[in-house]
Amino acid sequence: MISPVGLHRVLEPAGVLPQAAWRLDASPAIAPNEVRIRVERLNLDAASFRQLREKHGGDGARMRAEVLEIIGARGKMQNPVTGSGGMLIGTVEETGRRSPLGLRVGDRVATLVSLTLTPLAVADGLARWDGHSEQIPCDGHAILFARSIAAVLPADLHPELSLAALDVCGAPALTARVVERYVADRAREGDARPISVAVIGGAGKSGSLSLVAARRAGAARTVGVVPVAGERDALEAAGVADAVVVADARDPVALSTAVTTALRVPADVTVVCVDVPGCEHGAVLATADGGTVVFFSMATSFAAAALGAEGLAADVTMLVGNGYAPGHAEFALKLLRAEPGVRGLFEARLAAD
Amino acid sequence: MISPVGLHRVLEPAGVLPQAAWRLDASPAIAPNEVRIRVERLNLDAASFRQLREKHGGDGARMRAEVLEIIGARGKMQNPVTGSGGMLIGTVEETGRRSPLGLRVGDRVATLVSLTLTPLAVADGLARWDGHSEQIPCDGHAILFARSIAAVLPADLHPELSLAALDVCGAPALTARVVERYVADRAREGDARPISVAVIGGAGKSGSLSLVAARRAGAARTVGVVPVAGERDALEAAGVADAVVVADARDPVALSTAVTTALRVPADVTVVCVDVPGCEHGAVLATADGGTVVFFSMATSFAAAALGAEGLAADVTMLVGNGYAPGHAEFALKLLRAEPGVRGLFEARLAAD
Repeated sequence: MISPVGLHRVLEPAGVLPQAAWRLDASPAIAPNEVRIRVERLNLDAASFRQLREKHGGDGARMRAEVLEIIGARGKMQNPVTGSGGMLIGTVEETGRRSPLGLRVGDRVATLVSLTLTPLAVADGLARWDGHSEQIPCDGHAILFARSIAAVLPADLHPELSLAALDVCGAPALTARVVERYVADRAREGDARPISVAVIGGAGKSGSLSLVAARRAGAARTVGVVPVAGERDALEAAGVADAVVVADARDPVALSTAVTTALRVPADVTVVCVDVPGCEHGAVLATADGGTVVFFSMATSFAAAALGAEGLAADVTMLVGNGYAPGHAEFALKLLRAEPGVRGLFEARLAAD
Repeated sequence: MISPVGLHRVLEPAGVLPQAAWRLDASPAIAPNEVRIRVERLNLDAASFRQLREKHGGDGARMRAEVLEIIGARGKMQNPVTGSGGMLIGTVEETGRRSPLGLRVGDRVATLVSLTLTPLAVADGLARWDGHSEQIPCDGHAILFARSIAAVLPADLHPELSLAALDVCGAPALTARVVERYVADRAREGDARPISVAVIGGAGKSGSLSLVAARRAGAARTVGVVPVAGERDALEAAGVADAVVVADARDPVALSTAVTTALRVPADVTVVCVDVPGCEHGAVLATADGGTVVFFSMATSFAAAALGAEGLAADVTMLVGNGYAPGHAEFALKLLRAEPGVRGLFEARLAAD
């Protein structure tokens, strides 16, 4: 039997899932439930790109060599230091007759499962990548399993824009779900207190989408926390948060003071979207008793979160941000279409890349 | 203002939380919201004790000298290599008039926040400690902040037994909360499906308490997963789970097959209580769509959990196990009293130590 989660592509160690594998079989021949994509571009995740850039001092040739070496050795793009991957776009080249993904040859798609579990082979040596962007022009092929997820890129949005949103589409979906839950619980309990939401890293891609998702889900007051004045100005101009504050998210006291001052209460829901280590304690401290912290940053330390909340005697629910939720791709694209403020932030970011 | 989280006790570096501080002020005079404990015993955490013992080749005098040096230099017992601490027991010596902890002078207590953030001074040179145990007889004093937590040791239970349960009391509290939520949601929605719960590492301290907590919270069927036949026999004899299965939690396919077979469906709630790395994917795969995984293992990898669920397109909620919840100490002690099966497992474990 060909495994729906790709166990048959795992070369070593045997028996683990593709994401945990050291090495995958990226051969182009597909099983009846697989799909082969002709790759057009890889998007490294932010943590991985940052690690590579810092390690190599921004030297594009050395970054390219390391990415090629990783993909060649592992049959997938999984940064061995950060453990993270990214996503890709390409065109459906061949579909197995038993693939349940509903894709057709010629569809232009973005994969919504991580590169860390996607069999991948590069054919062009990544020759068109200068190392200055996490978006890597690439010719090669990738394999989707039966339980993979890929979104067909919509015709009405620029592909770059769609991709940027699809890359982080788990964040607004989960934020909306959590906020909706608080709204429904309070309504049922006759609790008139409004729902307050803080998004750490509010001017970024996942952050700005989470801000508008929270507002649409019923948050009465939202604050976006950003590290520098430039991002503050951009986020204020976008009009997607009720308040915008500058604070160092790694400084627990500064962060919690900034959030609590802006919201006038601690946050019911705090969403961590900023990819720097050490934000766990500040996020916990900024959150009300009975509140929820959603960690979307791949720089989150499990131990720091668990021990931090215990040490602060903080009765907060802490969620590991799951990149998947049903309908997450469509929801993120809908927000991008409906929220000019978010769209403007995305376009400015793409223009700057 | 005197900080509820102890910022006023931080000497260096300024502005960080006590846990992150290099040095705390352990002076005995208390602020109005603090409590001073007369210390009776320190319990080093296992990782710290092992590091000290290995560094000094088990030489008790040298281990004692280093622990004294750490506490003297830092004003707290935080092993600079492992970063970890432990807990202490002692007697309440003085309570500030604005302390919210509800303690009375003379109460015999165990601290439930880590030694890594507890101001501590030693008065007896740890003269009664031979270095052979992580339990250090000690005379000295420690300070609790407004937001610290300490549990009064009950008179009807052996202190060792109480301590063993208090050490893991966050797990049954959160398990109960999560299961109760599913029970209430299904009742409200008229959904008659029973709630199924899997506890990975079911025979351990946190695991066995979580199993009985789940059952009391309304789980209709529970399974405990254990790594070896000896634990299976012990857990079956204890009668705290509806089913007991042996599986390697690091093998996602084996784990999910074992759970799904025992419960006849995937678990609504999966609780990970086993302190080995690599259990994230199996836990996700063993959990039903719409279900919840609670990670209590400090060996959990945030990235493996986040990317694993995304890669499996698994619509599961993943919680970082918070060691604190209101009432968690009392709840764990209540379970220990009311559940002879759990108590037997604890006593057997203590006898084996």
